[in-house]
Amino acid sequence: MSYKLNLSDLPSLENADRGSITRTLVAHVIAEVDSGRLTAGDRLPPTRALAEAAGVNHLTAARVYRRLAELGYVTASVGRGTFVSARAAATPEDADSADWQSFVLPEHRLSYAAEILRDTLHTPARTGVISLAVGWPAPALHPVKELREISAAVFDQVGVEAVSYLSSSEGLPELREQIAARGRRSGFASSPEEIIVTSGARQGLDLVARALLRPGDVVAVETPTFAGLLASLQDSGARVIGIPVDEEGLDVDALEDVLARHEIKLCALQPDCQNPTGQTMSAERRARLLELARERSFFVLEDGVYATLRFEGPDLPRLRSGAPSHVIYVDSLSKSVGGGLRIGWIAAQGPVLNRLAGLKMATDVHTSALDQQIAARYLEPGIHERLLEQSLPYYVERRDALMAALERHLPGEYRARLPLGGHHVWVELTKPVSERTLYSEAIHHGVAFTPGAATMPEPAARAHLRLSFGLLEPEELDEGVRRLARALRAVHRYDQLGATAPVS
Amino acid sequence: MSYKLNLSDLPSLENADRGSITRTLVAHVIAEVDSGRLTAGDRLPPTRALAEAAGVNHLTAARVYRRLAELGYVTASVGRGTFVSARAAATPEDADSADWQSFVLPEHRLSYAAEILRDTLHTPARTGVISLAVGWPAPALHPVKELREISAAVFDQVGVEAVSYLSSSEGLPELREQIAARGRRSGFASSPEEIIVTSGARQGLDLVARALLRPGDVVAVETPTFAGLLASLQDSGARVIGIPVDEEGLDVDALEDVLARHEIKLCALQPDCQNPTGQTMSAERRARLLELARERSFFVLEDGVYATLRFEGPDLPRLRSGAPSHVIYVDSLSKSVGGGLRIGWIAAQGPVLNRLAGLKMATDVHTSALDQQIAARYLEPGIHERLLEQSLPYYVERRDALMAALERHLPGEYRARLPLGGHHVWVELTKPVSERTLYSEAIHHGVAFTPGAATMPEPAARAHLRLSFGLLEPEELDEGVRRLARALRAVHRYDQLGATAPVS
Repeated sequence: MSYKLNLSDLPSLENADRGSITRTLVAHVIAEVDSGRLTAGDRLPPTRALAEAAGVNHLTAARVYRRLAELGYVTASVGRGTFVSARAAATPEDADSADWQSFVLPEHRLSYAAEILRDTLHTPARTGVISLAVGWPAPALHPVKELREISAAVFDQVGVEAVSYLSSSEGLPELREQIAARGRRSGFASSPEEIIVTSGARQGLDLVARALLRPGDVVAVETPTFAGLLASLQDSGARVIGIPVDEEGLDVDALEDVLARHEIKLCALQPDCQNPTGQTMSAERRARLLELARERSFFVLEDGVYATLRFEGPDLPRLRSGAPSHVIYVDSLSKSVGGGLRIGWIAAQGPVLNRLAGLKMATDVHTSALDQQIAARYLEPGIHERLLEQSLPYYVERRDALMAALERHLPGEYRARLPLGGHHVWVELTKPVSERTLYSEAIHHGVAFTPGAATMPEPAARAHLRLSFGLLEPEELDEGVRRLARALRAVHRYDQLGATAPVS
Repeated sequence: MSYKLNLSDLPSLENADRGSITRTLVAHVIAEVDSGRLTAGDRLPPTRALAEAAGVNHLTAARVYRRLAELGYVTASVGRGTFVSARAAATPEDADSADWQSFVLPEHRLSYAAEILRDTLHTPARTGVISLAVGWPAPALHPVKELREISAAVFDQVGVEAVSYLSSSEGLPELREQIAARGRRSGFASSPEEIIVTSGARQGLDLVARALLRPGDVVAVETPTFAGLLASLQDSGARVIGIPVDEEGLDVDALEDVLARHEIKLCALQPDCQNPTGQTMSAERRARLLELARERSFFVLEDGVYATLRFEGPDLPRLRSGAPSHVIYVDSLSKSVGGGLRIGWIAAQGPVLNRLAGLKMATDVHTSALDQQIAARYLEPGIHERLLEQSLPYYVERRDALMAALERHLPGEYRARLPLGGHHVWVELTKPVSERTLYSEAIHHGVAFTPGAATMPEPAARAHLRLSFGLLEPEELDEGVRRLARALRAVHRYDQLGATAPVS
């Protein structure tokens, strides 16, 4: 029997190893299709014929057809054979189509946390959608007039240094000094040498995960936690174990249970105004956590981004003050001054500080010199304190509006603790419902939220939602929750009908 | 026999796995030393006695002592036993010393390229040292007046958006459009959707290495190459194979030899004004490289940072114009406008573009909004073209001064091709000499350079130096080479005496 794929004209495989044999044969068939010599519906030779003609074993020939099928070039029909698919022939690929890429790119499972983060980043720009999903601060509070003046002063005072390379990956010395001065007051650092300036706290978290964790390591993290932190921990390949959070913060008893079974490299948490629960860790638990870190030699990653956005509750020294070599502190100006100015920092000491500085250099040499010059001047005592003072009543008003909206539109259907600070309310739904279905249905109703699963390393028994109030007006918060309640009712209705919700 | 380490008071190891048994015992001994219960010179029990008392095997006990020795707490003396070391007892550790870290941190071999990069980053600030090691552009050419005005205009025009989060990790739409417009002219991109704004080209290179390479992969790179690129490739765990560069750029025949033996994931190069050789790849070799990339399905990483700093030679379209799905293009404003403004970009398409955008988001959310707003306005046609035009004679003068200085101070002792663009001269020394020894001796003589070994994946037969001229005045270049010549002569003298050069 003869086939349009000419078996006497296959490419030479003489110098090819196993991987490239498959690739060479796949490329050959693709070239035949792209050139039009093979067209839709043409039958390819059976794998045994291809194997014999190419001088390879039939498993390799089968692999070639499998890859061609994955790439959409052929369709296998049981009992009939393998055929050039209609799609490939109908839309001839240009000479440099990207189709080949998906079969060369290394495998990468995007974590659900990362997927949701990418999706929600765009929601503020989506027309008509009220985004309760984005944990950003209110631009109305950013000190834009002051920053405009400071920016002009930077150019006047340092001239070209505002835009030239810095000779330090750790950051501008003046900025490190201002940060360390604040560190001495709240306890996260004692000297500028402990500070590495990062491009936002997110970079700090990612650098710590990359510096410390290797596949097979075990890491403990609050559950729920910040989705970005969870994504960075999961991307390292480490095994991520969730430790519950209650009104006293991270549950240290639960951490001890984990320590009885595992050696951990790192415990990551937000002791102050936790994202998303808004709770603050008690002094007694802080002391016990540090004791465990010393006893069991693990690092603590303290994320302090919401610590200065405290509405009520105890104002305790940062964890790091109690164990400066065990605690790596991460913070930023993004939640107050503005996330567009990419200014964050790490405070650490010992070999890990050196490791982090090397990684920072390899990642992007250093953080924007202009942003650093501006931040150094902005952080001179005065302006920032006034900004924080003004912010608190603004956010308290929105938190209270959101809590009231929940009570108004979802009475008896949720549980939520009053957050003591930060930008989020953590909501547990009392009736069972699929978070993913609710997420799709909510977007359909014009409201977005962060599904609980994006904030938890292991699935929870009930559905949870993180609702963020920093970016919205009180009436938008009310309208957002009203839409959410309608979406929830719609999903419950589908469930009662035994139907599947439409996925948008 | 009794020891001051009380064997009947060892910690419980009941719930500990193998790794944590060692750690628990090590921590116990350290605590005994830190508390003063054990002091310098105290003899520890033999490993067998420790093993028996702790209920572990003697290999574990030996590992405990080995770790304690690594940490400086004990010293082993053959035939006599193991003793608490003087250092530990003489400088009692505070409650949270960082000593424990080095034994918890994952292993990490800092590549020589990364080591040299970190060292040379600081050389411009070192008093009295003329740094030929730093490949930075001249701050004198940075358009600081224009940037000052643009920065004020940004605050006037977009207000708080200058400092707020962007809702896109890929970058500010206006900047992506300006970059794509330039891409259409030189061939590196055809639409804004292909562009991801990065924090400098270095971040672009690092993201590409992280997105594409896994331990065990094979990657080809020009040798010599940019040390930062080499460091990122090596950090991925991939096997890095060097492909020589001559006056026609990357030697494609040599690449074909590699392809006969290996399947490669990526070939990374600077086709224009290569760093460090200053050579440009011929049109014929470009075409052959792209043909190979298509045939063998590998990615090409095209680093174009020096392409607009061309003094002479052919001005060819960027590689990416010939194979947009195979070539990932990386560039920045750092070598012209200023490296403190962290603005770079990646141009790519297909699944790899999506992968890179996800990684950018996980790394630092997005690049500085203020820097991006400034760059978008700066890149409107006009200013940048004038800047580039003014730059060329400035750099040609310095290149020529450096070439003349080499001829003046090192006649007959080196080989160097005239660079056709960029900021570097690549020098081969004709007489054998150790690069590392010369590097130390040169710093001692008040001059720094980049040792060839930091730019090559495999050791070379001869000593090489990368000398950068962008940052220095002609007379400084002359003085730098004069010092270098003296350092070289000093090293040759040590060699003749059979002595070892002093390492500073």
